[in-house]
Amino acid sequence: MAATGRTRTEHDCIGTVEVPQDAYWGIHTQRARENFTVSGIQDASHDALIRAYALVKRACAMANAELGLLEPHKARLIEQACEDIGHGMLADQFPVDVLQGGAGTSLNMNMNEVIANRALELDGRPRGDYGFIHPNDDVNRSQSTNDTYPAACKLAICMGLDPLREATDRLREAFHALADRHRNDVTIGRTQLQDAVPMTFGQEFHAWASFMKLDLSAMDDLVPQLCDLNLGATAIGTGICADVRFRKLAIAYLAQITGLPIRAAHDPVASVTDMSAYIAASATLKNLAIHLKKAADDLRLLNSGPRAGLGDLSVPPRQAGSSIMPGKINPVIPECVDQCCFVIFGMDVTVNWAAAEGQLQLNAFDPVIIHEILTGMTIAIGAMDMFRTKCVDGIQVHVDRGMKHAQHSPSLAAALNGAIGYEHAVEVADTAMREGRTIRQVAGELTDIPAARLDGMLDVVRLSRNLGQTCRDGQ
Amino acid sequence: MAATGRTRTEHDCIGTVEVPQDAYWGIHTQRARENFTVSGIQDASHDALIRAYALVKRACAMANAELGLLEPHKARLIEQACEDIGHGMLADQFPVDVLQGGAGTSLNMNMNEVIANRALELDGRPRGDYGFIHPNDDVNRSQSTNDTYPAACKLAICMGLDPLREATDRLREAFHALADRHRNDVTIGRTQLQDAVPMTFGQEFHAWASFMKLDLSAMDDLVPQLCDLNLGATAIGTGICADVRFRKLAIAYLAQITGLPIRAAHDPVASVTDMSAYIAASATLKNLAIHLKKAADDLRLLNSGPRAGLGDLSVPPRQAGSSIMPGKINPVIPECVDQCCFVIFGMDVTVNWAAAEGQLQLNAFDPVIIHEILTGMTIAIGAMDMFRTKCVDGIQVHVDRGMKHAQHSPSLAAALNGAIGYEHAVEVADTAMREGRTIRQVAGELTDIPAARLDGMLDVVRLSRNLGQTCRDGQ
Amino acid sequence: MAATGRTRTEHDCIGTVEVPQDAYWGIHTQRARENFTVSGIQDASHDALIRAYALVKRACAMANAELGLLEPHKARLIEQACEDIGHGMLADQFPVDVLQGGAGTSLNMNMNEVIANRALELDGRPRGDYGFIHPNDDVNRSQSTNDTYPAACKLAICMGLDPLREATDRLREAFHALADRHRNDVTIGRTQLQDAVPMTFGQEFHAWASFMKLDLSAMDDLVPQLCDLNLGATAIGTGICADVRFRKLAIAYLAQITGLPIRAAHDPVASVTDMSAYIAASATLKNLAIHLKKAADDLRLLNSGPRAGLGDLSVPPRQAGSSIMPGKINPVIPECVDQCCFVIFGMDVTVNWAAAEGQLQLNAFDPVIIHEILTGMTIAIGAMDMFRTKCVDGIQVHVDRGMKHAQHSPSLAAALNGAIGYEHAVEVADTAMREGRTIRQVAGELTDIPAARLDGMLDVVRLSRNLGQTCRDGQ
Amino acid sequence: MAATGRTRTEHDCIGTVEVPQDAYWGIHTQRARENFTVSGIQDASHDALIRAYALVKRACAMANAELGLLEPHKARLIEQACEDIGHGMLADQFPVDVLQGGAGTSLNMNMNEVIANRALELDGRPRGDYGFIHPNDDVNRSQSTNDTYPAACKLAICMGLDPLREATDRLREAFHALADRHRNDVTIGRTQLQDAVPMTFGQEFHAWASFMKLDLSAMDDLVPQLCDLNLGATAIGTGICADVRFRKLAIAYLAQITGLPIRAAHDPVASVTDMSAYIAASATLKNLAIHLKKAADDLRLLNSGPRAGLGDLSVPPRQAGSSIMPGKINPVIPECVDQCCFVIFGMDVTVNWAAAEGQLQLNAFDPVIIHEILTGMTIAIGAMDMFRTKCVDGIQVHVDRGMKHAQHSPSLAAALNGAIGYEHAVEVADTAMREGRTIRQVAGELTDIPAARLDGMLDVVRLSRNLGQTCRDGQ
Repeated sequence: MAATGRTRTEHDCIGTVEVPQDAYWGIHTQRARENFTVSGIQDASHDALIRAYALVKRACAMANAELGLLEPHKARLIEQACEDIGHGMLADQFPVDVLQGGAGTSLNMNMNEVIANRALELDGRPRGDYGFIHPNDDVNRSQSTNDTYPAACKLAICMGLDPLREATDRLREAFHALADRHRNDVTIGRTQLQDAVPMTFGQEFHAWASFMKLDLSAMDDLVPQLCDLNLGATAIGTGICADVRFRKLAIAYLAQITGLPIRAAHDPVASVTDMSAYIAASATLKNLAIHLKKAADDLRLLNSGPRAGLGDLSVPPRQAGSSIMPGKINPVIPECVDQCCFVIFGMDVTVNWAAAEGQLQLNAFDPVIIHEILTGMTIAIGAMDMFRTKCVDGIQVHVDRGMKHAQHSPSLAAALNGAIGYEHAVEVADTAMREGRTIRQVAGELTDIPAARLDGMLDVVRLSRNLGQTCRDGQ
Repeated sequence: MAATGRTRTEHDCIGTVEVPQDAYWGIHTQRARENFTVSGIQDASHDALIRAYALVKRACAMANAELGLLEPHKARLIEQACEDIGHGMLADQFPVDVLQGGAGTSLNMNMNEVIANRALELDGRPRGDYGFIHPNDDVNRSQSTNDTYPAACKLAICMGLDPLREATDRLREAFHALADRHRNDVTIGRTQLQDAVPMTFGQEFHAWASFMKLDLSAMDDLVPQLCDLNLGATAIGTGICADVRFRKLAIAYLAQITGLPIRAAHDPVASVTDMSAYIAASATLKNLAIHLKKAADDLRLLNSGPRAGLGDLSVPPRQAGSSIMPGKINPVIPECVDQCCFVIFGMDVTVNWAAAEGQLQLNAFDPVIIHEILTGMTIAIGAMDMFRTKCVDGIQVHVDRGMKHAQHSPSLAAALNGAIGYEHAVEVADTAMREGRTIRQVAGELTDIPAARLDGMLDVVRLSRNLGQTCRDGQ
Repeated sequence: MAATGRTRTEHDCIGTVEVPQDAYWGIHTQRARENFTVSGIQDASHDALIRAYALVKRACAMANAELGLLEPHKARLIEQACEDIGHGMLADQFPVDVLQGGAGTSLNMNMNEVIANRALELDGRPRGDYGFIHPNDDVNRSQSTNDTYPAACKLAICMGLDPLREATDRLREAFHALADRHRNDVTIGRTQLQDAVPMTFGQEFHAWASFMKLDLSAMDDLVPQLCDLNLGATAIGTGICADVRFRKLAIAYLAQITGLPIRAAHDPVASVTDMSAYIAASATLKNLAIHLKKAADDLRLLNSGPRAGLGDLSVPPRQAGSSIMPGKINPVIPECVDQCCFVIFGMDVTVNWAAAEGQLQLNAFDPVIIHEILTGMTIAIGAMDMFRTKCVDGIQVHVDRGMKHAQHSPSLAAALNGAIGYEHAVEVADTAMREGRTIRQVAGELTDIPAARLDGMLDVVRLSRNLGQTCRDGQ
Repeated sequence: MAATGRTRTEHDCIGTVEVPQDAYWGIHTQRARENFTVSGIQDASHDALIRAYALVKRACAMANAELGLLEPHKARLIEQACEDIGHGMLADQFPVDVLQGGAGTSLNMNMNEVIANRALELDGRPRGDYGFIHPNDDVNRSQSTNDTYPAACKLAICMGLDPLREATDRLREAFHALADRHRNDVTIGRTQLQDAVPMTFGQEFHAWASFMKLDLSAMDDLVPQLCDLNLGATAIGTGICADVRFRKLAIAYLAQITGLPIRAAHDPVASVTDMSAYIAASATLKNLAIHLKKAADDLRLLNSGPRAGLGDLSVPPRQAGSSIMPGKINPVIPECVDQCCFVIFGMDVTVNWAAAEGQLQLNAFDPVIIHEILTGMTIAIGAMDMFRTKCVDGIQVHVDRGMKHAQHSPSLAAALNGAIGYEHAVEVADTAMREGRTIRQVAGELTDIPAARLDGMLDVVRLSRNLGQTCRDGQ
């Protein structure tokens, strides 16, 4: 871009600026990219945001056209430009720093300018011929940053939920498949890291699949909240500069072209500063991270060893673990997952900060919020796909060890509570521990329960399935 | 209690302990109160938790009775004891530190002991006569800490939502009433603290009422998640020690006596370690706090002055503001509200920590979670009632100042965009600022729009209601 | 107090209020206790803060007296009142909610009133005889809330550091004693939960003692920062209402009566809003919590079992661990420690919030900051004393198991790197794992190193002390 | 790289892998870049970390050579390779994801491989000729990831402090220059957003310079903590595989080539898992962010208007502020600064998480910590330079408005306290407010102080400098 060094001159309320001749963006973008120099990351990196914004602009153009506020030819040009951007064209034309000040005005201006110049191009006109199609008067007609930018942000999260859901579902399925392979393999359940009562490896892994299912459901629940948009409310929610009919039309068109349950926010003034949808999205992402961390941490524990640890299973070896200890292999994939979770936990706090710093008729901090949430979603997707393909799919369960652990647990004595009472069962458990024997052995001596009944009562397979076997549909 | 110094002796798997003669609690509670000495706050301080736990224990006793696992007379005694606790009796019998280790086992044991001893008392028997009614074998039958404690915690949050909802609704109504009083009073909307376009004070205050409405709705949405309980799943979700029919019955009885939509968790093993409901509750509370902070911060800004600030309104004077500056009055109530919000923001992080530190078949950190959430709810209720009665209800709006602000805003030029285009409107705005005049004055000169039409276009009353007037039902 | 229901009437810039007849506090306190109704916790609960504030007031009275701004008799009365409060008298006279708005003005007013009324009492005069000694004109002379309140807060933290240091040092000594008992007992070091190379239990425990030593040193480093005070700078740092000589004198007197290195802040205007000392104190407390969590978590891991865990040691049994699993004992004390740490982690975030919300010439949120920090310190003290007496002191190390773990670690092959190279050592380690043998056994076959030399190279005692034995002075 | 598609084969304990023919990295790096696919950011992006690691490796090679553990020729080759990397050569050879699992092993391995292959190249040998110089046996000799990686991380922070200090100092100087320009211009001080007592703009801006000075001092205080390194302690702090003399030598060489006060950590076992230096660095960065946010927020307040705000000053216009409101200019630079601060606040929480999740002999989460801290430092530098050049340097102060604000403040009555007492001064202030007059006017009537003395007492210039004028050295 502008490798030629040639420029065109544009002006605004402050003065004039040279813009690269070939750039689709204009003066507002040019100023913004020079103003904000902090993260080195451009808006362009969040393609869901760019595509979502183009959809918003397209719906607005359709509404303006229907209301006669844009003449049909111009409207068609603008719509086509929006579609082009929505298909990934001009992806390099959004160069402003993601941590931009101005409440998103720079991206809105950038979008208006790129759409205008692309529309001009489609009509065979030169860049900057704003007398024909103007970024503000035409592309931005009936709009403001404060209604379209949050709309684009929320829509971008919605769109980002699709790949997030898919990655979550793939991991759910991987946990499920692992559970299926071990539905009959008994192991020890541990509470507070102490030997407790028997379960199957299938149940243990199935729980992680259930976590993912909960997360999928939570993502679905987010959508309506994210689809409460404020188009037509313009700068502060009073709808200044917009035809009163625009609101309903723009919402309807956006619903139509996205297939999402888009609705107009109930109180348009409140909606400008309400950050609830972001807080909810961030909390949902955080909860997913908590679930991922749980599975990763459990795998790190269960994989501990090879000789002086729990050793219930082995995660697949991915790389040499030590520059000094030969042959040592570490659970590097779960460790990487954990770190992704820590990043997401910090993200949630950053979002909290930005969401709680609104003032009067605006919260100027949507840019950092959307950047953090979209980044968190991307990291979560990467973490889940990595977790699945490089760890979960290749787990080796040490079935014999699990069974041995289960049979030797002193907490098996719980199975005797009903027959001999908690206090007597305590004696059995204590004796077993003191003498290094199993509950079965001690119970044969200390109780008068017949051997066959004892065998049944202490059958670890039976004990692990009192509430039934885990299966693909829960219980 | 035990002022006499007389004690009775109880024993457990570790040994014997002297318990105050008159205490309803027993050895497990006695050990726990001596073990945990960190916060100085007792379980008893969370009466919703105590009452909720008694409800859980009562439902379990009913299920046990129906299954023939508790004989009818004993079951009746236990149920009566639970009802007594549910009505606030024996409220001083839960002395363990809220930050107890053990995943809630101490409160469960405490509850079992108090119920057993109260049941014994109802039958005319002495404390500690556990041969007749045993805390573990009878009261805790078919149960574990790991299914009943989270059930009690989630139920306690549900019960705590009632007063929280009421306080939220009272504040909503107060904001609404304030908005109603000023529905026709025009003021300036400010974005990024810069003069923007006109709105009414009614719209400004109504937005805060809408925030509360969103929060009320979010609280409603929490209930189903909080009502997904795991009774009958016992220690690790496999249901060991529980009749397989118990799960359904206990859930049904609890639904019946609480009137809540209690359901059995889908995957009982996953449910033991799933903290989603707490994360959601904490996020809901955090979002409420963000809304409260927004209103409090806005009031601090709008109240700034009396002479060198925005001065749009005055919050009621509550106390002298300075030990040195005579007559200075500060917005102490909003400042107090803000601090409550900061506490809740920290609470959310503590909950995140505890929720993300589960290991294998248990997360041992419910106690700190429930303590933080219930404390946060209590603080939020106090903050809202204080905010309402000592601040919101007494706000004095400076109506003339608002109108003057609105009429002098250079951003009024936005109302000319449609007629003269954004770029020409910039000239009008710049001229107005440079020459210290109003948009109306300058537009009369720089445009050829007839005066009457200009008056209409720049009518701040009309401009504030493009999307209609705010009213009690939104718009 | 005021059980009689009798009152006296006081007035302020807002009007008049009835104050309980016997109360030492006056109208400002009375209003404040009615205004702030959120936490239920009174300033009185932080006795370090009350005592520190009395010291500040005493130093100011001494300075005022020396400057002739208070007549000697009155000054002596005021000083005596301050000393009385400093000795714990009138501890129930500070009833305002700790989350008070007003930047601490209420506690300053409360302090001024109690000192005035106590001074009046010492002179045989009735409560409220402010014509003789006035809370503002006399007690508060040359002062403001904005210089004295932060001074009292920082001094309170300094004073709170003493018991915190003592508890930290006691725990350090307990870790040290444990390390000493096991200085020659070899165990396995584990990195990333994988068996690594040998160390002694002494080294493992000594590390925790070293953590405490680092924390003690960090506490010492805090003191100078906490002693940078702003007395004499009054409301906004310009020193209005104060004799210019007062600053130096008040600082000198406070240094003298506290023995602390109190200095005047370099830039008095910056000092009013600078929260650095609080952020530093909170970070120091957080780092202590990280160290405590590390030791608690490690103990939970090392104590895992009894049969299906690491089992390197047993923490002392403190209470029955399960309401359902007989004989199960859980590491409840470390779990309680962890929860205290989570509270402190949330506290740090709350402090961050409050510290970052200052505006113009004041940050109004010191009250929540000092409440959180002092509460965090109290919890840390409780957690450490509990940890020490109920866990660390009674740890049983399973010495044989540690030695066995060490000898069987495949990572012992690292000791061969120097002789046979990393890649050949990998072969030895792999073979040992594949064949279920020790490194010593395999190395005897796969290398041509003489047996005696191999024994030396793989001597786990020697390998654990390459850098020397841990001892009381570090290495 | 490897555009040719040609590869060479390398092997490790898991098997063989094809590595791009020309890559300086080897099998361990190749595996790691395929394993970790989450952030899309490579180690190479943190050039301070790469350069620091090369310095560590160089010092180790020097120590090994002196001890005769590396023959002189090889040592020279390795040292030269380290110097090349230190000078920025091979910067594209560190492709592993920054959120890598494995506690930094991948970067250590990567560094060993690149150094080995560069050393081989310097000797005219082909890539992968590890029989001559081996990444583990030669480059990594006497080392482990667990001692060298944290050393490189801490050194990288130290090195990153240099540009951070410079940016901080430049901003400090900019604030100072602004203060100098307005040292005699009186304005109103505001506490709790209420008009308080007079100060100069110079004092107001000088406070921000003082903040920066505090931050610079805090950065200096970090250095010793960051220079406490653990070289020679190898895997778990026991020094296995390292000559006992290596520790001292490597530390000495590193101190010599960096000029930093590098020392050996006191307790090498504790040092492996101690995260104190990171927590301290993160807290220092957070405190800097708090100071930046304070200045940015104050500027947003002081710049509020242009007509309905405080209007004490104008930040320079950087870009059009609205897509809809013509001529509206927003304080976009301070808003961008604020968002950078929110990112840093979240960073501090992520660091807390990672630092508090160590287990037994290692904390595996240094990678996310160092990534977050270095990123935070980079953002802070960008934010400060942007703040300075695009905002602070161009601030226009509205001097007349400040003076008017000062003269009309009712809190000026504080200046009368000494003469007429606080209570009488309250009357003066109240009357002034009620009657819309100044304190000077009312005091002339309500007190019998002579006019000339009143003029002196209420002289706002004098009142702003009771403690002296701010100046370049504080006062």
